[in-house]
Amino acid sequence: MASDHYSQSRAIAVLGTGVWGSALATLAHNNGHSVQSWSRRGETALAAAVADADVVVSAIAMKGVTAIAAQLKALELPSSVILVSATKGLDPQTTRTPSQIWRAELPHNPIVVLSGPNLSAEIEQGLPAATVVASDSLNAAEQVQDVFASERFRVYTNSDCLGTELGGALKNVVAIAVGVCDGLNLGTNARSALMTRALPELIRVGTHLGGEAETFFGLSGLGDLLATCTSPLSRNYQVGYQLAQGQSLAKILADLKGTAEGVNTANVLVALANHETIPIPISRQVDRLLNGKCSPQEAVAELMARDLKPEACSI
Amino acid sequence: MASDHYSQSRAIAVLGTGVWGSALATLAHNNGHSVQSWSRRGETALAAAVADADVVVSAIAMKGVTAIAAQLKALELPSSVILVSATKGLDPQTTRTPSQIWRAELPHNPIVVLSGPNLSAEIEQGLPAATVVASDSLNAAEQVQDVFASERFRVYTNSDCLGTELGGALKNVVAIAVGVCDGLNLGTNARSALMTRALPELIRVGTHLGGEAETFFGLSGLGDLLATCTSPLSRNYQVGYQLAQGQSLAKILADLKGTAEGVNTANVLVALANHETIPIPISRQVDRLLNGKCSPQEAVAELMARDLKPEACSI
Repeated sequence: MASDHYSQSRAIAVLGTGVWGSALATLAHNNGHSVQSWSRRGETALAAAVADADVVVSAIAMKGVTAIAAQLKALELPSSVILVSATKGLDPQTTRTPSQIWRAELPHNPIVVLSGPNLSAEIEQGLPAATVVASDSLNAAEQVQDVFASERFRVYTNSDCLGTELGGALKNVVAIAVGVCDGLNLGTNARSALMTRALPELIRVGTHLGGEAETFFGLSGLGDLLATCTSPLSRNYQVGYQLAQGQSLAKILADLKGTAEGVNTANVLVALANHETIPIPISRQVDRLLNGKCSPQEAVAELMARDLKPEACSI
Repeated sequence: MASDHYSQSRAIAVLGTGVWGSALATLAHNNGHSVQSWSRRGETALAAAVADADVVVSAIAMKGVTAIAAQLKALELPSSVILVSATKGLDPQTTRTPSQIWRAELPHNPIVVLSGPNLSAEIEQGLPAATVVASDSLNAAEQVQDVFASERFRVYTNSDCLGTELGGALKNVVAIAVGVCDGLNLGTNARSALMTRALPELIRVGTHLGGEAETFFGLSGLGDLLATCTSPLSRNYQVGYQLAQGQSLAKILADLKGTAEGVNTANVLVALANHETIPIPISRQVDRLLNGKCSPQEAVAELMARDLKPEACSI
């Protein structure tokens, strides 16, 4: 394909060896790049892992981002090194996004957000997928596009870094709600209505935080919402589904492979919405459910029972 | 619920006794209305079925709309009778929507479009769902809301009659594409990307034809797209799924219970898009596939292989 020119082999450091970090490492490796994976539990020092990197990809869980960003800052990377943030979540303490944390610590490096409908297991199987790389720097975004893009993994550039990132964080809360809906066997009609009414809620919060509305209708917003809410592979969906089956949150999280970021994001989101008075009825019910303030049945009934009124997906 | 006031029992005639007509008849009956169902294959004359009706609900297949509208015109209904169009499709000869056909024949009666993510089988099971009733006349829309609305079937009013109707027609073509994608086992990531990129295509056509963009982000647009593309109950999805399994279109349609409107809609849509030069890459591949001009694999490959470029869900 004319525009898929893998002209240059780059040195890529991938931080985080979970399923998502591994999938990204595979994609870069398959494109002929030299890939060094790093985990805080591994034997390689962070300094050694990133020593010669042209691109550092962070696929670590939300709770680790602040600490790793501080460590990378101390390493004084050259300002040409591109930092790719592939973490989806919000910081509980500060409500900052991962890219905002990176930017604060590495103000002179280009930051690129990578986010989209990307279930890791499918990407590892070589199934086709598409994603978004967003950055203030189009040049940096295009370099990251070159690192990952292939016929099977389509990578689109976008200039709305924050909007791209927020779609990936906020949809995890909706995925819990949709998991509850499916766990209660309410059917496709109910699930479709719930997801449709969730999108304006995401956009209300996302644009308030600085994202552009249009971004949320794209792959990193709606696309990721669809993937996360329609696949049993999604961990956040699984949390909701199992809550609906009557399991306790503590047991579900203990048994889960990997992190369900939506559990933390719901708390952060509700605190934020309360402070800024943004209406988030769906996320609010998820938060009540996660905090044991209502049953799955009550949460869903509350969402269905809102007064009849003109349809408005106004943002 | 305060706003669900079923203050008045009305006489409702439901034209069409397929699964959708039956589901609507059940909903009205359960709300205490007097319901008369009619089918062209039945023994009741159309004149008798609609004789005392306050509301006439048309749930007949697209191909029957023109003939029945002409018959109703000849019956000279009182101008107070509300006509509800619940058919999803486009007329092959004229590219008109059902409500446009009704309006031409019954210019003095209020016309209301009813459309949303409403798989009939789920509604018959009493599972929760939401829909949209759209009309130039808010009063007529609210009367129809009263006919059907219940705690389990939420009905929202909208003033964009055409946009509401077009979402329901156009998404059937996308459902065929998504069925192909799933039939080829391409996974959740690919399906989510396809649906995300289909929505702007629907909006491009829909707004060109006179609908409002915002409507397509609501229940009758995105909501219906989600329901149709994520349930094996959808006939249009089934057409795509079985084409991907190598079955012939003729055999699939012969075995199908009910009509897959998307097959006709694809033809109409491509003719229209050619005439008006609207880009519809997804619908175009569906049309090529339905007309035997490419294989399912080729159709999907063509959609995945578009050049890498900035993400734009521009309409």
